[in-house]
Amino acid sequence: MGGVTTADRVPDRVPDRVPKQDRSRATRQRLLEAAVACLAEHGWAGSTVSVVAERAGVSRGAAQHHFPTREDLFTAAVEYVAEERSTALRALFPEGAADRRDVVSALVDLYTGPLFRAALHLWVAASNEDQLRPRVTELEARVGRETHRIAVDLLGADESVPGVRETVQGLLDMARGLGLANLLTDDTGRRDRVVAQWAVLLDEALARDVRPQGLSGLRD
Amino acid sequence: MGGVTTADRVPDRVPDRVPKQDRSRATRQRLLEAAVACLAEHGWAGSTVSVVAERAGVSRGAAQHHFPTREDLFTAAVEYVAEERSTALRALFPEGAADRRDVVSALVDLYTGPLFRAALHLWVAASNEDQLRPRVTELEARVGRETHRIAVDLLGADESVPGVRETVQGLLDMARGLGLANLLTDDTGRRDRVVAQWAVLLDEALARDVRPQGLSGLRD
Repeated sequence: MGGVTTADRVPDRVPDRVPKQDRSRATRQRLLEAAVACLAEHGWAGSTVSVVAERAGVSRGAAQHHFPTREDLFTAAVEYVAEERSTALRALFPEGAADRRDVVSALVDLYTGPLFRAALHLWVAASNEDQLRPRVTELEARVGRETHRIAVDLLGADESVPGVRETVQGLLDMARGLGLANLLTDDTGRRDRVVAQWAVLLDEALARDVRPQGLSGLRD
Repeated sequence: MGGVTTADRVPDRVPDRVPKQDRSRATRQRLLEAAVACLAEHGWAGSTVSVVAERAGVSRGAAQHHFPTREDLFTAAVEYVAEERSTALRALFPEGAADRRDVVSALVDLYTGPLFRAALHLWVAASNEDQLRPRVTELEARVGRETHRIAVDLLGADESVPGVRETVQGLLDMARGLGLANLLTDDTGRRDRVVAQWAVLLDEALARDVRPQGLSGLRD
């Protein structure tokens, strides 16, 4: 999939005529971004293809050319933004495994912005709508696997050690719960304290698990 | 508030005439239970006073006598069931502080049933509806404080120790995230493994925090 980046832009020699394919890509991207913003602000009930097309400054027909159904548009939108966020997260730590407290903090940040809010609206709608449910279930599994993979890499976690996989999964579950706690009120202060504490517990758990039993707990 | 319990029932000497106050209480309770079930199954958009009245076998007028607005009915319903669940949770551990793995498991169970599903629909709707938001925010804070208090008691956690409060909060955030992960698919198998792992980490953290630094990690 991937968005339009500087490298994709039309070459300088035809500055006044943007190729059709690039215009189409740019339209698609505008629709996806408008869809996520719309879902985050108005929820599923207030999010239709027409509303998004208007917000993106695109005709309804053009929107439907890209996304024939409402389900197509919104699942594609959540997937697109999730991919953008994953790329951004990896870019924050270009060397790979990094200080675990920084990584935990960055992972939790994934769940507190408009993307999580949009995804949450889609999940909750999917739990009551048969047309949406299988697509969102599949999307959630795919995005979840990718986030887990990034978390394992950046935390330098060795999943061959018993328990480590579940330690990382639990951290991501906590991040999701912290996102939910931020839905109605600004929970930043409390969240920062919880994250600071659990980053220490996680760091200790991962450090201990990869060492021989007898050395555990002696590292501080 | 409180529901109708066996002790509240009408005395045996007037078996054929249920006092008006008790009938009213029973009606109220039926409405609250129907409201939670309705919210869990159909979401906020599909949950109106009329639908709930019909499900409870109560006239629309009687329902509106108890709950003048839709917001009244559904916030009262989530609060009522949350109180019932809190009472049931305490009753599981009548001696107070108990084996921490059992307590973690019971706490997580709070977030995986129809109550959590109903509360989630209400939260998400509140994030887009100005009429609902202040009431749900206040309700969420109240229920959250009570759950935290129960968790601290049952885990035997000493919150005067730095970090312990955040350790318990993080556990409840994780429980909320696990509830969300159970929304579209049955996540029981994965959840059990995550809970088993984090119950150990939590137990170690709480045991360590109340001991002198030098002894930490030596208890197994």
